[in-house]
Amino acid sequence: MKIITLLTDFGSFYPAAVKGVILSKAQDVVFVDIAHDIPPQDVRTGAFALLSTARYFPSGTIHLGVVDPGVGSERLSIAIESGGHFFVGPDNGLLMPAARSLGTPRAYKIALDLHPSSTFHGRDIFAPAAAMLATGSKPRDMGHEIRPKELSFGAPRRTKKGIEAAVIYVDRFGNLITNMRKPPPGQVRLKGIKLKIAETYSQARRIEPLITVGSHGFVEIAVNKGSAAEAFGLKAGDRIELEERHCSE
Amino acid sequence: MKIITLLTDFGSFYPAAVKGVILSKAQDVVFVDIAHDIPPQDVRTGAFALLSTARYFPSGTIHLGVVDPGVGSERLSIAIESGGHFFVGPDNGLLMPAARSLGTPRAYKIALDLHPSSTFHGRDIFAPAAAMLATGSKPRDMGHEIRPKELSFGAPRRTKKGIEAAVIYVDRFGNLITNMRKPPPGQVRLKGIKLKIAETYSQARRIEPLITVGSHGFVEIAVNKGSAAEAFGLKAGDRIELEERHCSE
Amino acid sequence: MKIITLLTDFGSFYPAAVKGVILSKAQDVVFVDIAHDIPPQDVRTGAFALLSTARYFPSGTIHLGVVDPGVGSERLSIAIESGGHFFVGPDNGLLMPAARSLGTPRAYKIALDLHPSSTFHGRDIFAPAAAMLATGSKPRDMGHEIRPKELSFGAPRRTKKGIEAAVIYVDRFGNLITNMRKPPPGQVRLKGIKLKIAETYSQARRIEPLITVGSHGFVEIAVNKGSAAEAFGLKAGDRIELEERHCSE
Repeated sequence: MKIITLLTDFGSFYPAAVKGVILSKAQDVVFVDIAHDIPPQDVRTGAFALLSTARYFPSGTIHLGVVDPGVGSERLSIAIESGGHFFVGPDNGLLMPAARSLGTPRAYKIALDLHPSSTFHGRDIFAPAAAMLATGSKPRDMGHEIRPKELSFGAPRRTKKGIEAAVIYVDRFGNLITNMRKPPPGQVRLKGIKLKIAETYSQARRIEPLITVGSHGFVEIAVNKGSAAEAFGLKAGDRIELEERHCSE
Repeated sequence: MKIITLLTDFGSFYPAAVKGVILSKAQDVVFVDIAHDIPPQDVRTGAFALLSTARYFPSGTIHLGVVDPGVGSERLSIAIESGGHFFVGPDNGLLMPAARSLGTPRAYKIALDLHPSSTFHGRDIFAPAAAMLATGSKPRDMGHEIRPKELSFGAPRRTKKGIEAAVIYVDRFGNLITNMRKPPPGQVRLKGIKLKIAETYSQARRIEPLITVGSHGFVEIAVNKGSAAEAFGLKAGDRIELEERHCSE
Repeated sequence: MKIITLLTDFGSFYPAAVKGVILSKAQDVVFVDIAHDIPPQDVRTGAFALLSTARYFPSGTIHLGVVDPGVGSERLSIAIESGGHFFVGPDNGLLMPAARSLGTPRAYKIALDLHPSSTFHGRDIFAPAAAMLATGSKPRDMGHEIRPKELSFGAPRRTKKGIEAAVIYVDRFGNLITNMRKPPPGQVRLKGIKLKIAETYSQARRIEPLITVGSHGFVEIAVNKGSAAEAFGLKAGDRIELEERHCSE
């Protein structure tokens, strides 16, 4: 039994065609959908979703990821091995944060004789490649080794007042996930409002803003039983400044 | 082969981490997603969804449910056995209407040595517990028996004019599902408009309002080929009065 | 192992009841959700989704499709065999474009002794029928052969200025999928705007409109890294005219 996860921005029904192709070539697979509602062509959000989930799967899992603004262009199709996991998808950085979280990735160009359509490589290249991995092939069997494109969520930087960071994801509870890995050493404010340092949402009072290290390992700004995105008027991609000193309003 | 159903308010991609953890500990499982789009922290809607679906699964099914405004607080994590089915989730009433619909629930505190994160018990407590159930453990192996929190959808009550009830769910067709189990004995009106007593939507004329016992066993107000929610301006949580006597507009 | 695909307009959680019923009667099945977000009662969009995906599954696959404005009326329940695939659902044309794409469909009335609810045939008729197919029954075992209702996406027609066609689907990237199978022979304009003839989205410049044959085999109007639906103000169901001669704005 091989586990194949799927992450795309396809929305409705196109992921089923991908699964149909895989099932036509490999039996005894278990599909786990990671997400198909990644915002269209938003490679960074896709990369964050894969990074947040891939490492919970057992060794041997095959991760098929397709968020692919460059489909039909010169971008490569790649297969990666890292820490016992496998990845297939476009060479645009989508797969790399997850692959790096699992080990030292080795990436190979998928150079198979597949005659794909020009607009649906998920179905025509990545599905057959995933089926090959599920039936015993290795990434190195698909083409020569290449140096894959990387993707970074950026790093927080010190400012005069404190720390500047970026919001990399807003979950459906309105929690703001930042690109900080370590919480600030002391008390901070966001837009002049004090953030309670907390280990759980419940340590804050109802609708009190808090800062915590989220389950994904990134620093997260939340509002207990409320939405930090709404309270602070922030969205994915926004930059924020966490002020370390007391600020008068 | 063990069937594991999943019901959460996690939205995108977090459910995959839960499945990854389970697959790391138990092979030969079949996942069935009940829903991951329960409105954030809306325990009642989650309970209704689980109640409407759990009983259609075969004996031995494991139901993992997480709608959990109290994550990280003192609320217990529980495992329940009822009518041959198993449930794991927070002790906030989410699981109980479904568990009661299947038999006489016996509930146990999950007191495993798990070192969970403070914000993602679905992944760190309920997934390992579900995997234990899938590999032969019983709820009683996880901790001592407790009396779980109940959740009620309320009961309709008689008024001078007729019956007062509550809308507990609005489905995507705009059908209003109420907390009434038995239809009113005779002709009723809602907001002055006559509801046709019907067994099927098709017994009503196009856009005629009707009242029926829905497939879930609750009384439902619908509009044939239309939306009762829109027609009557009602939403989940609203109270309604079904008038039993003729009312002039 | 039997593959069962599911396509409905049920939205949240009702599809799980369908799967529960199937798993109660058939083990060793693999479910693949095609879509459950078909617009309510929109048989044509459902038919397009099934047509676009069914043929990628291996022979022997069972496709359960329910978009069913006529539930509880006189419309028949049917099982179809075509090209080694099986289909179950309402006799309203939903299944036929996909069935015809696979071979010569033979359709049978489902006349089983099932005592269904009046509003949820997906759970009460089509799930048991799919389980029977998964455990060895054939469509012809379920009732006598009938002539099923057809569904057509219409055909483009010549006009004085060029070709009139219909938009049958708008995907989440805003691509307009038309009912044309062959691209127009030469340069065309839509609403006075030239469409680049392209094989891939990437052949057009950023936000340049283009016309291509999509991965589903239909002619598609797209905007590279943009939304054709937004750019042209068009939606599913709209008729368009592709002008073959030069038009001044």
